[in-house]
Amino acid sequence: MASIKHIFHSRTTNDGDFFYAIKKILGFKPKDISIYNEAFTHRSLHETNKKGVPQNYERLEFLGDAMLGSVIAAHLFNKVPTGDEGYLTKMRSKIVSREHLNELGRDLNLIKFLKSSVSSEQFGGNIHGNIFEALVGAIYLDRGYKYCEKFIYKRVIKPYVDIERLEGKIISYKSLFIEWCQKNKQKFNFNVYEDTGKDEVKHFAVKLKLNNETIAKARATSKKKAEERAAKRAYYKFQEKIEKELN
Amino acid sequence: MASIKHIFHSRTTNDGDFFYAIKKILGFKPKDISIYNEAFTHRSLHETNKKGVPQNYERLEFLGDAMLGSVIAAHLFNKVPTGDEGYLTKMRSKIVSREHLNELGRDLNLIKFLKSSVSSEQFGGNIHGNIFEALVGAIYLDRGYKYCEKFIYKRVIKPYVDIERLEGKIISYKSLFIEWCQKNKQKFNFNVYEDTGKDEVKHFAVKLKLNNETIAKARATSKKKAEERAAKRAYYKFQEKIEKELN
Repeated sequence: MASIKHIFHSRTTNDGDFFYAIKKILGFKPKDISIYNEAFTHRSLHETNKKGVPQNYERLEFLGDAMLGSVIAAHLFNKVPTGDEGYLTKMRSKIVSREHLNELGRDLNLIKFLKSSVSSEQFGGNIHGNIFEALVGAIYLDRGYKYCEKFIYKRVIKPYVDIERLEGKIISYKSLFIEWCQKNKQKFNFNVYEDTGKDEVKHFAVKLKLNNETIAKARATSKKKAEERAAKRAYYKFQEKIEKELN
Repeated sequence: MASIKHIFHSRTTNDGDFFYAIKKILGFKPKDISIYNEAFTHRSLHETNKKGVPQNYERLEFLGDAMLGSVIAAHLFNKVPTGDEGYLTKMRSKIVSREHLNELGRDLNLIKFLKSSVSSEQFGGNIHGNIFEALVGAIYLDRGYKYCEKFIYKRVIKPYVDIERLEGKIISYKSLFIEWCQKNKQKFNFNVYEDTGKDEVKHFAVKLKLNNETIAKARATSKKKAEERAAKRAYYKFQEKIEKELN
């Protein structure tokens, strides 16, 4: 009990590790850190507020889902003026798909903040996306729509939303990256090694080097996935150059 | 052709009838009236902008749907702190149901602004909800999220969103209204008459009088519906009194 109390205390003050970790993820200061505490509280703890209302991430998940829906809708509307209603609906579903939200949550390693009385191995893969949505909901509640939009741009749209990719025009970032390297006579190397750590499932890590300098890292449950993920990150790092030089 | 051109012209200036009619519905000034023109343009006209992109309400409908979803989600989240994710999801679906959005669009008589080469009898009932959504999308595009929220509060949440009703606790506004009148020894009268006008389906109108003064009017395809609608309007007009005096 002492340890849970300790965690709880440090999660509701504006100077604890939790505050700084959240600030880093958001890119701005949380105002009311207790909202983020709720976003990372699993129902298994049966926490309630003074009025007896359950405090866990599920309500915030509902809110975050709605905010993601509207921010992504507005982005697509402006970004693709030629796309009709059916196209916009389809693109949005891809961006806010369970699979994609799980990837976002996993990449930010949000699960490490989760307070739960159930061990993390017992959660299904959707836990990552669920707490990502709850985090978005918490941002809306704490800082309003503008900040929520800012966060979604930084963490969803900028790094992940690539219309060409979504339309199926880019099949593999790895081959695109290799094509670019070869065209520019640059040396590249995908350095893959096993890196399971404390995970229950085997994991692989990749260091992607360009002319002997590490430009991207990634980790995933298969070699192929880890390489593709690292290539994607490298692609976004050099996006302007790559697009210019490959077209 | 001359008449369409005339309508189009008066719809893209800030001093025409269209501008003032929209301003009245919104409760604030439109900035770019041409966006609202698009919200009331049916695809049958095949209008395009200078770049050849189709100009009709369908893309705005997609945008408006997303904005309604997030504004209603945030409202329910704050309004019902004890409601869990399932409850919030269910309540939101009721508020943004096709049927409800059609009622909202119909009550504002939005269809009178619709430019179309198809006659209005050929549209299904969903046209009302569709252009209501498009109007919400236009407001977002023209004035941003805050104004969009303001409009949804004024036109959806304030007059229509009644948690008790949505939860099924109020079955009939008519019986509630009658109960209140009898308790307060007030005379009431539902004055129903046929009022089909140019509609293809028979319509009824109701004037609801309280002590010989008309306090609400409504129109619907059956006597019962029209009475219930008028009673609902009367209920919202005297909501505070009724709630206080009936509890």
